[in-house]
Amino acid sequence: MAKILITSGPTREYLDPVRYLSNASSGRMGAALAAAALNAAHRVTIVSGPVEVDYPERAEVRRVVSTEEMREVSMRIFPDCDGLIAAAAPCDYRPTRIETEKIHKNGGPLRLELVETPDIVASLADGKRDPQWIVAFALETNDPRFRAMEKLRKKRCDLIVVNGPRAVRSVDTQVEILDRSGELLGVFSGNKTDVAKEVFRVVQQRLIS
Amino acid sequence: MAKILITSGPTREYLDPVRYLSNASSGRMGAALAAAALNAAHRVTIVSGPVEVDYPERAEVRRVVSTEEMREVSMRIFPDCDGLIAAAAPCDYRPTRIETEKIHKNGGPLRLELVETPDIVASLADGKRDPQWIVAFALETNDPRFRAMEKLRKKRCDLIVVNGPRAVRSVDTQVEILDRSGELLGVFSGNKTDVAKEVFRVVQQRLIS
Repeated sequence: MAKILITSGPTREYLDPVRYLSNASSGRMGAALAAAALNAAHRVTIVSGPVEVDYPERAEVRRVVSTEEMREVSMRIFPDCDGLIAAAAPCDYRPTRIETEKIHKNGGPLRLELVETPDIVASLADGKRDPQWIVAFALETNDPRFRAMEKLRKKRCDLIVVNGPRAVRSVDTQVEILDRSGELLGVFSGNKTDVAKEVFRVVQQRLIS
Repeated sequence: MAKILITSGPTREYLDPVRYLSNASSGRMGAALAAAALNAAHRVTIVSGPVEVDYPERAEVRRVVSTEEMREVSMRIFPDCDGLIAAAAPCDYRPTRIETEKIHKNGGPLRLELVETPDIVASLADGKRDPQWIVAFALETNDPRFRAMEKLRKKRCDLIVVNGPRAVRSVDTQVEILDRSGELLGVFSGNKTDVAKEVFRVVQQRLIS
């Protein structure tokens, strides 16, 4: 039995009380990975951004909104876990300020200053001790494998799951899994539940059992 | 029997293939208003941004993503309708350009240039002919009644429903309805289904029967 932290869903970075930056991550991949891990008798804690998906009842779910919150909550939970599956799509930019009142239209353009948010996987990797493991996801529109391998190395991950932008919006998905040496461990496509099972099978074989 | 156009949900304005500006509108108010209108034997077409809510089966639903799409589709449908209930929360700013590749972090800040999107209610009001009617929603964090009345006059609406920012995110809501003279026709609070019924009752009394 392993204790697994799964981050899931998007985060939101608010500009004002109403508007925010986000992405279309639905939490479906995170939910399906949690179900696969629970079915294999592991314990699962999900740190999730705002989503409408139903997570498995046996998973402990912690709800967050912003990337900084997701990072803080995950950093508190990860030390007690055997591994991390970072399936979330946290915003990596946030506005430098959040207006307290709704920004009103004045007919002119609006200039928004954004800064990078702290990287959640890199923060968790910094505090990682053996034999903790990390599986990250990469969403790339250009040179996906190359960029994914860069991410894996920079963030000291054990495996990386590479998917394209279509994966974010839809029920179906296609992913590749690479290990540290760049070896392609599998290419899986289909609905997210089936793909999550295949991804988790690789995680189980390579990192848990 | 009236033919009613209901706009519902948020819109999204993409920065790149993955990231967008949006808001937390869930489409629940639009769905509940559609149900109330259908129960009163009216015909309903919903133009909806991306939401996970289930719309009533008897409603015709047109799915859109951006504010400009919501405006175009609504402008094609409105001439055949008796009235509009504009319950959507369309983005009123969009990035001046949409990057074709995912914007990559480079350690520095990101400056985003936004411009106003065309106003959907104002566009529909421009083409309105008697006896077509328009009910708009206003979401204001400051001086809500005053700003709502401004909006009602500027966009030539018949009624305006005023709600606070908490209404966007939650199942429960509180709204006020004002007419052109500024008369307060009702204050309703509770879950969105019940509030939608009350709002629709006012619409029916004032504008349809």
